[in-house]
Amino acid sequence: MPEFFNVLAPQAAFEAIKPMLPVIIETEVVPTARSLGRVTAEVILSPEDLPAFARSTMDGYSVRSRDTFGASEGLPSYLDIVGEVSMGKAADVKLGVGQAATAYTGGMLAHGADAVVMVERTQTLDETSIEVLRAAAPGENVVQVGEDVRKGEPILSKGSVIRPQDIGGMLALGITSVSVSRKPVVGIISTGDELVPPDNKISPGQIRDINSYTISALVEQSGGEPQCIALVSDDFEAQRQAAIEGLGACDALVFSAGSSVSSRDLTADVLNSLGEPGVLVHGISIKPGKPTVVGAVDGKPVFGLPGNPVSAMVVFDLLVRPTMYHLSGCEAAPPHSTAQATLARDIPSVAGREDYVPVRMVSSDGCVSAEPVFGKSNLIYTLVRSDGIVRVPLDKSGLYAGEVVNVRLF
Amino acid sequence: MPEFFNVLAPQAAFEAIKPMLPVIIETEVVPTARSLGRVTAEVILSPEDLPAFARSTMDGYSVRSRDTFGASEGLPSYLDIVGEVSMGKAADVKLGVGQAATAYTGGMLAHGADAVVMVERTQTLDETSIEVLRAAAPGENVVQVGEDVRKGEPILSKGSVIRPQDIGGMLALGITSVSVSRKPVVGIISTGDELVPPDNKISPGQIRDINSYTISALVEQSGGEPQCIALVSDDFEAQRQAAIEGLGACDALVFSAGSSVSSRDLTADVLNSLGEPGVLVHGISIKPGKPTVVGAVDGKPVFGLPGNPVSAMVVFDLLVRPTMYHLSGCEAAPPHSTAQATLARDIPSVAGREDYVPVRMVSSDGCVSAEPVFGKSNLIYTLVRSDGIVRVPLDKSGLYAGEVVNVRLF
Repeated sequence: MPEFFNVLAPQAAFEAIKPMLPVIIETEVVPTARSLGRVTAEVILSPEDLPAFARSTMDGYSVRSRDTFGASEGLPSYLDIVGEVSMGKAADVKLGVGQAATAYTGGMLAHGADAVVMVERTQTLDETSIEVLRAAAPGENVVQVGEDVRKGEPILSKGSVIRPQDIGGMLALGITSVSVSRKPVVGIISTGDELVPPDNKISPGQIRDINSYTISALVEQSGGEPQCIALVSDDFEAQRQAAIEGLGACDALVFSAGSSVSSRDLTADVLNSLGEPGVLVHGISIKPGKPTVVGAVDGKPVFGLPGNPVSAMVVFDLLVRPTMYHLSGCEAAPPHSTAQATLARDIPSVAGREDYVPVRMVSSDGCVSAEPVFGKSNLIYTLVRSDGIVRVPLDKSGLYAGEVVNVRLF
Repeated sequence: MPEFFNVLAPQAAFEAIKPMLPVIIETEVVPTARSLGRVTAEVILSPEDLPAFARSTMDGYSVRSRDTFGASEGLPSYLDIVGEVSMGKAADVKLGVGQAATAYTGGMLAHGADAVVMVERTQTLDETSIEVLRAAAPGENVVQVGEDVRKGEPILSKGSVIRPQDIGGMLALGITSVSVSRKPVVGIISTGDELVPPDNKISPGQIRDINSYTISALVEQSGGEPQCIALVSDDFEAQRQAAIEGLGACDALVFSAGSSVSSRDLTADVLNSLGEPGVLVHGISIKPGKPTVVGAVDGKPVFGLPGNPVSAMVVFDLLVRPTMYHLSGCEAAPPHSTAQATLARDIPSVAGREDYVPVRMVSSDGCVSAEPVFGKSNLIYTLVRSDGIVRVPLDKSGLYAGEVVNVRLF
């Protein structure tokens, strides 16, 4: 019986494939307002100072701070109101000695002013004069020109995943379009004589193909574009043709099932028949998920994921997702949602292997515990009934009930 | 000067508005394969047993387990191979005493078989007979009918956010379409005399409207559909008209800026002019974000968010996001990404107020520390330069450098 060869730890498997992969690919320009989750294709520099003018952060009066020095409730400064600077308008008031102008939050300061006194720190004497009850320091309640960001400053590095605040940051500077990496297109080939499309009626012995769809959803969640290439039988030539088609149309290829070592498992052979370097890793030291193929053909990554749903999801996370972000030019995939919980039961494992165990999160009396779901990894409902997954590290022979663990939520 | 009234803690503010809001709304039927992130509108029951037939989990031989009892390497059982059950085909072999049939991972068992012996636990004698080297227990290496999920079993409760594995779980049962809540439409009204659309040239005193777009992106991230209603000046009648339009077109309404208590802050007055109950909360006990309006009109939630970007993002997370999931029929919003880190500097706060401080995550020597970004909350780049936010709880007067904190990543 054939054996796995080159069994690696997941991180080592990723490092093995990374140097084979040129970073994608074409870039495209999208409206900044529609760029959420996209990856910047170049460093973005600020084209101007923000704010472009000194702004008040309070409602009150713009003043020359020196006119307020020494002011106190017992000995206020008296200032003449010589005008106001309306919101959204250029200042048309210039302050002389002992003068102030009405200011609004976000509005310009009067010419000559270097601070703003909050309205709460003043007393109105009449329509044109106020008492200032506390000294204002130079720059107090003022956002200076360029204080948010300076002209020429790098605001987003190349390879950043764009977040809501980044959209705001760019638009604040008038950057209304942004160059991003094209979304990586991930082709999916589902293999197995027993599989039928999920909308088909099934006969005894057949099961519905689901991995095409769970993997598609995982690709979508990871910022990629899934493309279902084919559902093919356990036939070398059929799989090879589908792979050629997939490699032509996509930036990465994922085979579902067929990654183990029995005679029906063709992924490794198909991959080796397609080009260089072919299979790089066959078998990774995790459970579930050992029967995994990692390879590349002409600079495009190809993965053979186990057909078991739990294994497929674990391996997707460990290898396919970071590869997708790598292709997009990101140094690292964004972190997953995690939560801490107290493990409800022992999880046995074996040193030298990473174990991944689905868990259900149960809250009671303000404590959150993680209950292992010890379902078989070939049952999709093991995942449906779980809220997350716990990793038993390579160097541990298990985790104990009562330990606080990090749960990767999904 | 007017004061905030009914200042509440964020959770209390959410509880104040929740009873005013009927759960949405219309439902729609979408293809299961395209339902990622949508919210189930009804409980989903399994229409059939999964698997529908007893399946082998190994390559090997399906057997009558009693024929192998007592077998060992020293004293194997001899079995006759009377056929094979091909993948994806109904079993057409029936086992008699002392008989076995070739089985494949995922394939049906032969009739009469109740266990599968792994090929590794057998020795081939000739083309039609094997030695079994270890006894197989009844059910060994078999997934029983309905072991994954039973017919009639609830598989997803109403109000579940659909995940990749849930898509797989439904499709495995032939559920190819699913009834989900319509995405909540959130209308956004940006207010301020100083604001211009971001693609306009700005004159002195003007700034570009960015909150419409950051809030839109946050709505999108929370599974909703943003709709920019209007960019309006600080004019009561203009804002009231925009609000009427927004309430007609949307499930929830968000005003950006105008939520404080100065004469230019009109959100509360506009909201009170529109219908019952109007303003429920004005001011929440957080920093930044105190000047927040929470209300409802005829069963639709209306929020007045502070114009400061940091405040707006904090309040969105605390109030708008949970409201959106509530409208969709979810009991709780899905958890955010979080990470633990060691606080790099003290964060002072005041008991009786929740503080939110943006932080930058810095890794060195395998340790992750969270460095507070003490920028002003009215600077968007305070958020752009941050990786997440740390909460100082209501009952604490600060956090100390060296404490391990949970960072809500964004």
